[in-house]
Order: sequence, then C-alpha cells, then structure tokens
Amino acid sequence: MSTHIAIVGSGQLARMMALDGIPMGLRFSFVVEPDEDDRCVKGLGDIVLSQADAGELYKQLGEPDVVTVEKEQVDIELLEKLQQYCPVYPNPKALAIFKNRRNEKHFLNTLGIPIAPFRSVHCEESLHAAVAQLQQPVFLKSAEEGYDGYHQYQVTSLNIKQVLESIEFPGNWVAEAHIAFDREVSFLAARDPDGDIVFYPAVENKHRNGTLLQSVAPATSLSQQQIETGQGYLRTLLESTEYVGVMCVECFVKGNKLLVNEIAPRVHNSGHWTSKGALTSQFENHLRAVAGLPLGSTETHEFSGMLNLLGCTLSVDQIDDRQSFVSLYGKTLKPGRKMGHVTIKGKTHDDVVARLDQLEALAYG
Amino acid sequence: MSTHIAIVGSGQLARMMALDGIPMGLRFSFVVEPDEDDRCVKGLGDIVLSQADAGELYKQLGEPDVVTVEKEQVDIELLEKLQQYCPVYPNPKALAIFKNRRNEKHFLNTLGIPIAPFRSVHCEESLHAAVAQLQQPVFLKSAEEGYDGYHQYQVTSLNIKQVLESIEFPGNWVAEAHIAFDREVSFLAARDPDGDIVFYPAVENKHRNGTLLQSVAPATSLSQQQIETGQGYLRTLLESTEYVGVMCVECFVKGNKLLVNEIAPRVHNSGHWTSKGALTSQFENHLRAVAGLPLGSTETHEFSGMLNLLGCTLSVDQIDDRQSFVSLYGKTLKPGRKMGHVTIKGKTHDDVVARLDQLEALAYG
Repeated sequence: MSTHIAIVGSGQLARMMALDGIPMGLRFSFVVEPDEDDRCVKGLGDIVLSQADAGELYKQLGEPDVVTVEKEQVDIELLEKLQQYCPVYPNPKALAIFKNRRNEKHFLNTLGIPIAPFRSVHCEESLHAAVAQLQQPVFLKSAEEGYDGYHQYQVTSLNIKQVLESIEFPGNWVAEAHIAFDREVSFLAARDPDGDIVFYPAVENKHRNGTLLQSVAPATSLSQQQIETGQGYLRTLLESTEYVGVMCVECFVKGNKLLVNEIAPRVHNSGHWTSKGALTSQFENHLRAVAGLPLGSTETHEFSGMLNLLGCTLSVDQIDDRQSFVSLYGKTLKPGRKMGHVTIKGKTHDDVVARLDQLEALAYG
Repeated sequence: MSTHIAIVGSGQLARMMALDGIPMGLRFSFVVEPDEDDRCVKGLGDIVLSQADAGELYKQLGEPDVVTVEKEQVDIELLEKLQQYCPVYPNPKALAIFKNRRNEKHFLNTLGIPIAPFRSVHCEESLHAAVAQLQQPVFLKSAEEGYDGYHQYQVTSLNIKQVLESIEFPGNWVAEAHIAFDREVSFLAARDPDGDIVFYPAVENKHRNGTLLQSVAPATSLSQQQIETGQGYLRTLLESTEYVGVMCVECFVKGNKLLVNEIAPRVHNSGHWTSKGALTSQFENHLRAVAGLPLGSTETHEFSGMLNLLGCTLSVDQIDDRQSFVSLYGKTLKPGRKMGHVTIKGKTHDDVVARLDQLEALAYG
C-alpha cells in the first residue's frame, strides 16, 4: 500500500505538495476548518473537517501513515493527541515554538542566533515603551495569526495614537525595531527522521506591503561566509527541535551581518522556484522527509526567479517566452490574494532580475 | 475561465498530462471505454463514458476547449465529429494514418523516409511469401492494436506453422524484415497550431520483449548528421500532417543509417525522462501545444535515464540515492504491466547507463 499523508490545511502549499506527491505514489487527505476554502485541493484526496477528538479525526482521515502541516496556525493540542496514532512531522513541540512570534524570538535568543531588538507588547504602556526604546518605525505584529502583512502595523511616536485605536488590549503582540537592511534573504532545508539534512541555495527576496513579491536563487549578494552562517542557523534550528520536514529561515542582511527575521516551519513561498529550478522541489523533499524516504538532490542549474501573482493572474501566452512557467492555485480572484506564481529560468542573475521586473510590470502594470 | 482539455484515454499518459497541467491552471476530463480501468486519473477530472453521439459526448464532457488523445487506438470517426464542437489535436486525419501500421508505412514511403522492408499480410499465402522474401526472423505485427509486444510474432520458416495456428486469417497484419540494428533511438518534438516546433534531444532506448525498458538522453551514439536527419524526418511528419502536439519517432540505427520503425502520435514512454531532465516536460509541451500556449524550452542539463517498472515496483528508499525519482501510476500489479518508472540524473552518459543497469537488477533481479 502507498504511504498516506494527511496535511493540516488546504491552501496552495497543500496543493503543491499533493501534486508533487501523487506521481511519487503517495496518497493524501486534508484537515480543514469549517470556514476554510478548500478549492485548492479538490480532487487530490479526502477533505475532512477538523475536530477535537483526535482518534475520531484519525479514523475519518482513513488512518494516515503520517500527519504534516502547511501552515503555522495549527491546533497544537490536537496534533499532540494525533501523535498517539501516527507520527506528526514537524513535531508539535517545534510547531508550538514557531506558531508564536514571541516564543520564536525567545528561542532564537536562547540559541544565540541574532535577531532584531524586540519587545513584548500586552498593553498601551508597553507599546509606548517599545516605541520609545526601539528604532522607529517599530513593526508591531500579532504574536500569532500575523503573516503577509496581516495584523501588522508600522508604529512611530507620530502615529501611535491611531494605531492604538485600531487594536484591542490586552493582547499578545511583539514590537520589532526597524532594521535599515540592505536586502532580505531566505535559507531553506529539509531534514529527515534520521537527521540527514539537505540545503537549498540561499534565496534573495523582495517584499511588497509585507508580502513576498519576488525571489531569485541562488543569491549572489551573499558572501560564502554569510551563506555558511545562515545555513548554520538553520541547521541549529532543525537539530535543536528534532525537526522533520522543510524549514525556511528569513533573514535581513545589513553589511556583513545576518539577522533572523522569521521562521516558517513548512514549505515556503520563497522556495517555489525549486519546482523548476532544483532537481528536487521543496514540496517533494518535505514529503520525502515526513514519509521517511531518502531526501532528493537540491542541485540547481543556472538561475531561477519567482514572481508572486498577488490579486492578479498572468497567462503563459501573455509572457510568450520559453523559460517562463505559470503556476496557478485554482482560487477565485480577490485583491491581494496569492493567486499563483511565475517561475523563470535564466543564464545569469542579472538576466533573471531584469525579466522578473518586466514580468512584474506586465502583471501589475 | 481556465482552459478545459478533454483527453481520450485514462492511462498513465493521461495521468501525467493532467498532473502537469493542473498546476498550469488547466482543467481536465477523460473519455473512457466501458471496460477501461480509469484508476490512473481518478480525482484529476470528470470521467465520461465514450459514446457515438459526438454532440452528447461533448456536452457530457462539460464542453471542453480542446480534445486530445493519449493513445493510437481511438475512434477516428468520433473524433472527426467532435471537430464540429471544438478543435481536436492531433487532427483525426493524422491519427488515422498512425493508428494503422500499414497506412503509416505507406505514408513514410510517400514522404521518402527510409523504413525496414515490409509486406502486408492478409492470409496464409502472403505470410509464407513475406517469410520467404524478407530477412528472418520476420516481425509479424497486427496493423492495429499491436504495441509493446502484444499481437506481435517473430516468424521464421521453422516456426511459421505454429504461428499460423495462433492467428486467424483473413486479418490485417504487417510483416517487417528483421533488422540487425546497432541500437534503437527516438526523436521527440512538439508542434503548436502556429507551426512552431521544439525538439527534445535524441534518446537511446533499450527494449525487452518488444517493450521499452530503458532510455538515456541526450544520445551520445549518434552523429550530428544523424540527429539532424532524424529530426528532419520528424519535422517532415509534423508539417505534412499539420500536426499539433507531441510526436515521437522511433528509429533503428544501423551503421550511419537511420530507419524509422514506429511513430507515436502522442507523448511517449521514451520521453518520460523529460519530467526531471528537461526544463519543460513532454507532457507540459503537449498541453501547451494543444491549448495554443507558447511551447516551453526543451533545454536539458547533464544526462537523464529512465527505467520502466514492468510488472514490478520500486521505492525511493530501496534505491537510496539523491538523483533517483520514482513515478508510479496508481495501478494494481499485474505481470508485465507498466506500473511506473524511475528517472535518474547523472553527470556523464556512462554513469547514467551504469546506474540504470544497477536499478534494473534491483527492480527485476
């Protein structure tokens, strides 16, 4: 019988994992919340409503061989209970750390991994103190649920009153100091249950309103030492949490310094280029890891670029270029929504950057 | 709305086309015969029973934008009638030629493309004449329905009596002269409705009992002139039939001569390596062609190999190698049945050949 993987979540990441896994002979099911739009994974496996009774959920999923996740915001308690029935990868203890921005930052501090200065914010006074103490504009982010610019505010001593009107206290927030970074990069790796790790080349990223817009890989702006440092942080994170699956570490680069900004305990948008640009995609390597199969080569050839389609789509015939590949997620169009992405291949870094900018103009112009 | 492609057939080729097409934003439906095992495409689109009323079939399929095929043995008349409702690619006139081995050979003769000597066989006498006139053992193949060693016999003056006991006359057969070839190669290309053509590198193939077992690409045993000759034949075939989609031409190589053995008007087993080995897979390029999208780059990097899993399976953890990828078709195991294939990547031709042989021993040993 083929290995059955249950994925918590039903968005584009679950879709891309399933589409890479079906040819590998893997079977899938998906755990969704009652209000979750599951059209990304329709037809790719059974779709089962989440419920508090882990044994019943396990049964309804068809007794999967392993459970994995496509998002941070998961019910840790439920995943812990599911471990009685089958392995849950990444393990719920690791997911609990990375689910909460404050836990994550404290954990990074414990490991001695450099991050931007931050303050926990629970009330008006602590927000005032954070804005007074940290480099402005301060980034105020919800400790949970905040990603891609949602539940995030840029706060200065000038706009703090307006911000206070739009949020409710007491609450769980983290205020991060502004970092005048030179660039943003990310590091991706997969680790299997035996501790084997494969690293993808470092990726350069460009964001718009807190959401990833472009990626280029391999990064040429980093020194070999910076790459080793970033991959070293990632290795430390993977090993200290006994992590199984793909993890992404997003960093700020400032001069020759590297500051960890955020950790994604899952396949990540800045790794979508691997589907065309690496011998084994991040999706396949995540599946290999959680299914206990040997990890695949992360070897790349030439350069790859990725443009996110945020609230828009693009067709291959609009691009008319043999090195461009459009991937769509099957969603209905909404402003800002991640509808798909374009992956391109090119012989040089500059060529990929220039063509990403052309594609960006075509998609958003 | 996304482009809807109806595929006639529901085997592994339909499956691999759909799995490559879904991320491209394409939708699929499948036309099946009453006795057809459709488990390869379950979940990937609506599955509709074939019927003589083309208008009704078109409606039941959900009014697709285009109809294509995954096999030679199709109802040409039905496809011609479907053309009243939407484009059918490749066009039924071309499919009619390649559906029938005798028509195909006569067509190749008309185009001046060299083939092995052959005779049409309808009765006992014509088989005796063919065996007397052609280099033995003569390959007797059914004009239709014969592929992968089915409905095929090796006939000599010694065993002709036994062969005559197992076939019924009158019938439509073709007897082909034995060719003591040095090797077998295939050429693959895709052509779009505007006449744009992309060629994949030539592939070296190894068969077992008439069924493809191994492929290696790019072929290193062919001279540049032989490659140009083979691709020239393919171009002639594509252009003379106003063909849209992927076509494969299988050839015998004897010294510096190239003899066309067989033509497949569809994606082909000897192109499965393109999923990992070429920037655009044969499946994606077939879909791009029939959907009227610009064709993708057929660029390859290093060498690729493919091993068919015939009546057996293999798991990535049995292979334990970062450059090996197993693709399974979701079928139940039967002796000789195409269950899946393994694709490998390697830096040299010799390395790929040696590893294919190791994998063959592992799978069949």
